Amino acid sequence: MAEEKTLDDLFLDTLKDIYFAEKQIVKTLPKMAKAAQSDELRAGFEQHLEETHGHVERLEQIFEILGKPARGKTCEAILGITEEGKSIIEDFKGTVALDAGLVSSAQAVEHYEIARYGTLKAWAEQLGYKDAVKLLDATLQEEIATDQKLSQVGISEANRKAA
Amino acid sequence: MAEEKTLDDLFLDTLKDIYFAEKQIVKTLPKMAKAAQSDELRAGFEQHLEETHGHVERLEQIFEILGKPARGKTCEAILGITEEGKSIIEDFKGTVALDAGLVSSAQAVEHYEIARYGTLKAWAEQLGYKDAVKLLDATLQEEIATDQKLSQVGISEANRKAA
Repeated sequence: MAEEKTLDDLFLDTLKDIYFAEKQIVKTLPKMAKAAQSDELRAGFEQHLEETHGHVERLEQIFEILGKPARGKTCEAILGITEEGKSIIEDFKGTVALDAGLVSSAQAVEHYEIARYGTLKAWAEQLGYKDAVKLLDATLQEEIATDQKLSQVGISEANRKAA
Repeated sequence: MAEEKTLDDLFLDTLKDIYFAEKQIVKTLPKMAKAAQSDELRAGFEQHLEETHGHVERLEQIFEILGKPARGKTCEAILGITEEGKSIIEDFKGTVALDAGLVSSAQAVEHYEIARYGTLKAWAEQLGYKDAVKLLDATLQEEIATDQKLSQVGISEANRKAA
């Protein structure tokens, strides 16, 4: 009989899920930057792309801590979220509402990551993976900051222009 | 030539997206309640199902404010997120880690909703839909409270049992 699955299995599973998601985000952000109408939003996406490369590296460090190969697992959630973002770009291209739509799409991505990193951090704490907790928290704080910056861009600029 | 799309179109589009998502959540929560091992988590899902019926009604009130029929639009994001939740139930059924996985899945759903309701509220403010702002904020606050309750159940119970 196979050994019963525990929180360690769930932690590894979710690590693979967010690793796949981060790599998907690395592919998506340049398209969002290219689509953005305002310089501020474009610069924001470009800066977040840099950060996202760092998030991928931190996840690889955690796989190393666990002694497991860094491997992604298809994340249906991020595929659905980025698919919706793609539709927004197509449907609102060339309109005043595009940037507001891009902000909205990016915030859906950020919230998915905030959920996953929050969970992984709580599990790493429970499992006693102290170095992993630090790495996960560093990324979590960057995702929260990005979400707040996006809210600001939306309120101060994109939504007003779109209305 | 068609009139240019504006924030009003984006608002209606996203309203349809979250209306579809809420209806999907109404279908998913009973399955999560049934799968839950702890009474506290099961009761939490059942309570949130009641709230979710209220969220659907609030969205219908907003469609009415806009003078539009209440109609959903396939939300790939929620389909992906709930698909992952289904996989967790299948993969961790009968193990000590199941409840921790259910909490994680539910928090991914909550964060999707927090992102969408946050965006819709900001747009309703920009568009001057004061009654819609109140309705959207009421749901947003319930989603945030649910996410926090789930964190508590995870930390106080589900994660410890799973480790």
